[in-house]
Amino acid sequence: MERLISSANTLECATPHDLAFAASQKAMPAALKSQAGCLLIPQEFEVRDRTSIRVKEPRAAFARALSALYPRKRPSGFVHPTAIIAKTAKIAADCFIGPYVIVGEHNEIGGGSYIGNGCSLGDHVLIGPECMIHPNVTIYDGVRIGARTIVHSGSVIGADGFGFTLMGDHYEKFPQVGTVEIGDDVEIGANCCIDRAALGATRIGNGVKLDNLVHIAHNCAIGQHVVVAAQTGFSGSVSVGDYAAIGGQAGIGEKARIEARAIVGGKAGILTSKKVSAGEPVWGIPARPLRQHLRNLAYLNRLPELTEEINELKRRLLASETQHEQGHS
Amino acid sequence: MERLISSANTLECATPHDLAFAASQKAMPAALKSQAGCLLIPQEFEVRDRTSIRVKEPRAAFARALSALYPRKRPSGFVHPTAIIAKTAKIAADCFIGPYVIVGEHNEIGGGSYIGNGCSLGDHVLIGPECMIHPNVTIYDGVRIGARTIVHSGSVIGADGFGFTLMGDHYEKFPQVGTVEIGDDVEIGANCCIDRAALGATRIGNGVKLDNLVHIAHNCAIGQHVVVAAQTGFSGSVSVGDYAAIGGQAGIGEKARIEARAIVGGKAGILTSKKVSAGEPVWGIPARPLRQHLRNLAYLNRLPELTEEINELKRRLLASETQHEQGHS
Amino acid sequence: MERLISSANTLECATPHDLAFAASQKAMPAALKSQAGCLLIPQEFEVRDRTSIRVKEPRAAFARALSALYPRKRPSGFVHPTAIIAKTAKIAADCFIGPYVIVGEHNEIGGGSYIGNGCSLGDHVLIGPECMIHPNVTIYDGVRIGARTIVHSGSVIGADGFGFTLMGDHYEKFPQVGTVEIGDDVEIGANCCIDRAALGATRIGNGVKLDNLVHIAHNCAIGQHVVVAAQTGFSGSVSVGDYAAIGGQAGIGEKARIEARAIVGGKAGILTSKKVSAGEPVWGIPARPLRQHLRNLAYLNRLPELTEEINELKRRLLASETQHEQGHS
Repeated sequence: MERLISSANTLECATPHDLAFAASQKAMPAALKSQAGCLLIPQEFEVRDRTSIRVKEPRAAFARALSALYPRKRPSGFVHPTAIIAKTAKIAADCFIGPYVIVGEHNEIGGGSYIGNGCSLGDHVLIGPECMIHPNVTIYDGVRIGARTIVHSGSVIGADGFGFTLMGDHYEKFPQVGTVEIGDDVEIGANCCIDRAALGATRIGNGVKLDNLVHIAHNCAIGQHVVVAAQTGFSGSVSVGDYAAIGGQAGIGEKARIEARAIVGGKAGILTSKKVSAGEPVWGIPARPLRQHLRNLAYLNRLPELTEEINELKRRLLASETQHEQGHS
Repeated sequence: MERLISSANTLECATPHDLAFAASQKAMPAALKSQAGCLLIPQEFEVRDRTSIRVKEPRAAFARALSALYPRKRPSGFVHPTAIIAKTAKIAADCFIGPYVIVGEHNEIGGGSYIGNGCSLGDHVLIGPECMIHPNVTIYDGVRIGARTIVHSGSVIGADGFGFTLMGDHYEKFPQVGTVEIGDDVEIGANCCIDRAALGATRIGNGVKLDNLVHIAHNCAIGQHVVVAAQTGFSGSVSVGDYAAIGGQAGIGEKARIEARAIVGGKAGILTSKKVSAGEPVWGIPARPLRQHLRNLAYLNRLPELTEEINELKRRLLASETQHEQGHS
Repeated sequence: MERLISSANTLECATPHDLAFAASQKAMPAALKSQAGCLLIPQEFEVRDRTSIRVKEPRAAFARALSALYPRKRPSGFVHPTAIIAKTAKIAADCFIGPYVIVGEHNEIGGGSYIGNGCSLGDHVLIGPECMIHPNVTIYDGVRIGARTIVHSGSVIGADGFGFTLMGDHYEKFPQVGTVEIGDDVEIGANCCIDRAALGATRIGNGVKLDNLVHIAHNCAIGQHVVVAAQTGFSGSVSVGDYAAIGGQAGIGEKARIEARAIVGGKAGILTSKKVSAGEPVWGIPARPLRQHLRNLAYLNRLPELTEEINELKRRLLASETQHEQGHS
């Protein structure tokens, strides 16, 4: 029997036209119950009477199948007539430039890149090849972006860092004359803010993945392959080592150093100038090593009990003292 | 005497041309002092020598009066000549489509809907009747929005969910091929992000109200009439029951289940896969039942006292031991 | 020898063409090692064999030098032909209005102001002279902005406040008919949200500086020269006194009053209706006076030790009791 697989879904929602996957043994019962027309399953299993493909990493195989089943349209070789492009800008022949895009002076946009509707690019912006800039992204002057990087809508790259000095009765702006440099294969979520450096550059390494609404202040240096969940904020001059993983709504104080492969828990607060050691998991406000934080939480929960124990000791001690007094009287 | 009431204000700021309201007895003294030309007051009160209207729910009556006194202009039946609309898009006759709006292929926009300046709508977007999409909103391909829904400026609906797998030395993207479905009578604040599902749909139920800068990750299922204060974030696959109320800056971990009418306090952190029971108020990081959290806070504040008590016990015990020793020596 | 200084950098990165500065004695060793062609140093120091300028406040002098070395281009006297400007709008002759900007009815824009690409201005918007509105900012109807104010990209000013009342089985919107008033010399970061008042005005005083992704709810009254770090949120009707400083990711509950020069720590949570006294530093969730919060944290860390002490007391007391019993047996 021939079967056409034209789409994909979860085990629970899949129909006979769908591909689905079981990541591990845990998912096998659901796989057996699934209506999926084809299953991707771990190599070590076998499913009778079902169309299945045994693979080493079902999740990764499924991801690849998704790319094939749902190719993302990325038109190319087209500049919409309403795009306003400075004469000094160099745009590779096979780019797509959407309607109402504005491309400033001296920009360079690499081959195959896609600039979505209504994006605003300042002057001297460099965008590498095969990038995907979704609609309504704003990029300020001088920002440099590598190859194959994706920026989701509403993100603002290169706005002024937050630098002010109280001079007498008012704050004066410290001019933010640096820029932002973003590596290759980066993905930046929606409505993120990456500020330009005061001097030099705010740097985002290759392969970094930022979720939505992330804030990266001036002069941060984010290493390679760092992942950052949504709504996390990095204060000025924070450095983050390669492969660090930062949870959502975390706050990193100025000049903090997060070393390679460190893990910062969701909502954690790293104090100014603090170091998080390589590979270390931390959590809490202020953040401490995970084990210590969990221990503190456990002790905090036991406080009522502890108080009761102290009261009990007081009673017993009083009894003992009274008895003693009486023994001497 | 005839009096024209042409505007409305608070009791404190109202002038003789203004309508104002007293929500309850607590506000009556201010009402008596107010310069308001007309007062909406609770049924059970009476105000002599003042123009007043006695109503069951003064706040609700005032809200209705505001709508009448300040009708929000919503032009209709107009497509600005600069709007770029795909030929395959179906737009009801009485819609307003603002300047520099882009409407993709196969869109359908219901009667009376308003699409503000510079909005970008992808392909296969469905927007129901009487919606109000404020300027500079970005909607990705395939998003479906119900009737009478309001989306404020800067919000991004349908950006890719945050799905990556570490493959050897780099992260690979898990394609996000699902979509977003938003119900009727929803209001979405400014600069919110609602991500498309990896597979299937991220769902926002009827009557949900989101404040500004809210993040909703892929595959969340938000029930009906849920209210969410500003800057709160929902991780992937969170479910929220009907009429739940979520405070500001709360963080909800992956796959957490918040049941109907639960109340999540501001800044609360719900751990991954955690359940918050129906109707339960929770608070803290990590969130616990409100009563337990308040008790922990109280005990935490009493720690210095508790430590002093322990020191006192130590002194007394030492005295007792010494005395005892001496008694035996 | 003549030397042309054409740029500026940090002590570490400076080349012979760069100006650099040493803020204080602490930076003097780095200054001596720096390759900078010219150094700004504190008055009380002297550097031999180096081109240096002794000034009272090197940081401030450097800031002024940066403005001279890197003048921010701000074109003026130009309205892009694609800008759509209502006939009733009054725009001073030397403004810059970028491409795809939309200016509503009855707007007034003061002399020398810059409205960046793709900004959307509603009706009855007032913008003072010498303002800089970066690309893709959205300003709703009736918003008033003073002189020399800067708004970064993606910010939304004047969206509806979050006002809903549960009426039976659904929430009803309380119309938000007020506006937003922003003073002179304000700077608003990227992707901020400042909501219009329900009635009256949400107010931002002169000289206020907001970092990125800040949320200011309806009817807040932010005093003069207040600084607010990124991702902080103010609930409805919060008041903040002059020169208060608010850290990042802080959350301020409804109707809280933060008095002049108070300092709110990063991630702090101020409860609803709470007052923070003038000049007081507070921290924590819920926020307490800084000293008390630090003391609580210290005690929390000592809990394991405290528990051990209680166990030790128990052992000793038991021993004492046993001995006592034996003494009497």
